Amino acid sequence: MASFVERLDGAAEATHSLVCVGLDPDPSLMPVSDVAEFNRGIVGETAEWACAFKPNLSFYEALGLEGWTALERTIASIRELAPTAVVIGDAKRGDIGPSGEAYARAMFGVWEFDAVTLNAWGGRDTMEPFLRDPERGGFIWCRGSNPGSGDLQDVETVTDEGAEPLYRRLARESLQWNGKGNVGLVVGATVPQQLAEVRRLCPEAPLLIPGVGAQGGELEESVRKGVDRHGRRAIFNSSRGIIYASVGRDYGEAAGRTARQLRDAINAVLEEEGKGWR
Amino acid sequence: MASFVERLDGAAEATHSLVCVGLDPDPSLMPVSDVAEFNRGIVGETAEWACAFKPNLSFYEALGLEGWTALERTIASIRELAPTAVVIGDAKRGDIGPSGEAYARAMFGVWEFDAVTLNAWGGRDTMEPFLRDPERGGFIWCRGSNPGSGDLQDVETVTDEGAEPLYRRLARESLQWNGKGNVGLVVGATVPQQLAEVRRLCPEAPLLIPGVGAQGGELEESVRKGVDRHGRRAIFNSSRGIIYASVGRDYGEAAGRTARQLRDAINAVLEEEGKGWR
Repeated sequence: MASFVERLDGAAEATHSLVCVGLDPDPSLMPVSDVAEFNRGIVGETAEWACAFKPNLSFYEALGLEGWTALERTIASIRELAPTAVVIGDAKRGDIGPSGEAYARAMFGVWEFDAVTLNAWGGRDTMEPFLRDPERGGFIWCRGSNPGSGDLQDVETVTDEGAEPLYRRLARESLQWNGKGNVGLVVGATVPQQLAEVRRLCPEAPLLIPGVGAQGGELEESVRKGVDRHGRRAIFNSSRGIIYASVGRDYGEAAGRTARQLRDAINAVLEEEGKGWR
Repeated sequence: MASFVERLDGAAEATHSLVCVGLDPDPSLMPVSDVAEFNRGIVGETAEWACAFKPNLSFYEALGLEGWTALERTIASIRELAPTAVVIGDAKRGDIGPSGEAYARAMFGVWEFDAVTLNAWGGRDTMEPFLRDPERGGFIWCRGSNPGSGDLQDVETVTDEGAEPLYRRLARESLQWNGKGNVGLVVGATVPQQLAEVRRLCPEAPLLIPGVGAQGGELEESVRKGVDRHGRRAIFNSSRGIIYASVGRDYGEAAGRTARQLRDAINAVLEEEGKGWR
């Protein structure tokens, strides 16, 4: 089997795309009532333009038992309609001892995600269950783009070389946790300076970059600062911007158009940088 | 309706107990195959000796769809057999924007937990959806007892008055997030010095203290350092120590005996401190 980064690189190469489609179904915004049907429409129309899909588990959990059935059907749709795509469970998980092991079984054993987003507050041993298998990846939430993201992430910490914000320290630390080569980081598109810092510290890490589209990130700057020296290893997630591009019956087609536009806009920046697809 | 802390105080008063029973079902350790049946046996035998029950969601998530049904039945059993007990969803949740809102709907709307454990890595706005309702509580994971808990939580941060470990800064910060009076903190029983620090900074906050029992915490010291000046507002969680007290068919009775012993051991310390139940 391919390693996680080989899978991710291959998925991007197959679609010439660094787009990740976030599947965050909100029944109050959907033109159809069945979440799995809605998602299937989105996946079918965007599969050609996206290297990854990212269901955020909160939206399924909020629907009770039905939500989990919808997630199961959604993952099956992605595997069928977008067989090369990487499927990321956006779960921000992380817990100690047997609880962390159980979450990892859930993410990889039950749902069979290719990767999962992680919250490293508990430290190295809470990440380990998710990073044991080189075929699966973990994207550690490093620096967000929400109003309170600085409350802990930007706190200045004491180091031998002077003060350093905590998110940078976490980025450096994550290199030590990368024995299987499958550690990625989550950094928001709306914080380009922090994105550049993380890329500098972790030149080869896959970065998951949410906040393009509905969250209003400056796409061009985040592409320039987020990709590695080959113009790869960064995936740009849009959720609401794609899946609610139309709130009418044409939601699938609208999602497809928007995903394609996002892919093309990213690729235009890569071209300008001399890092386009060959 | 009573506020969350009134509910918690009342549950402790009703049982003269500061014991929380952690419901972390692991089918490989259970003498019966049905998780909900196993938990019902535990709840029935421990209800008299516990003020709170704490299902850790990871263990249910790891069982797939069946696990969620088992969690639903487990919560119903607690409501029936331990009607005054506080039910805490141990989920370590926290996410930005609509995702955080969705997790809060899941925890309080779908599962109807009285409280939830939280991970504050995302900062204040990621906690807000969980702290909006004064009848529900949030226990923020402040300082763990696992090997890597110091990786982020103990990092020395720069303040005007010199260096301060991050967990203490978070404890102080949490006081600012406590507009509804429903913010608690999670601090491990095996780190008594940190527990004392958190109690000093947050004299009235409810503390959820895992690690007594199977995790090997020193009970007496954690009781002395964890309770408030009245000998209340700290709940001591044991999961495996209680629920796997016997791996035989008498698991329920053994759990009841063990929960009662833990309650009595805690109460003996309270008596010595002149803070017993009147």
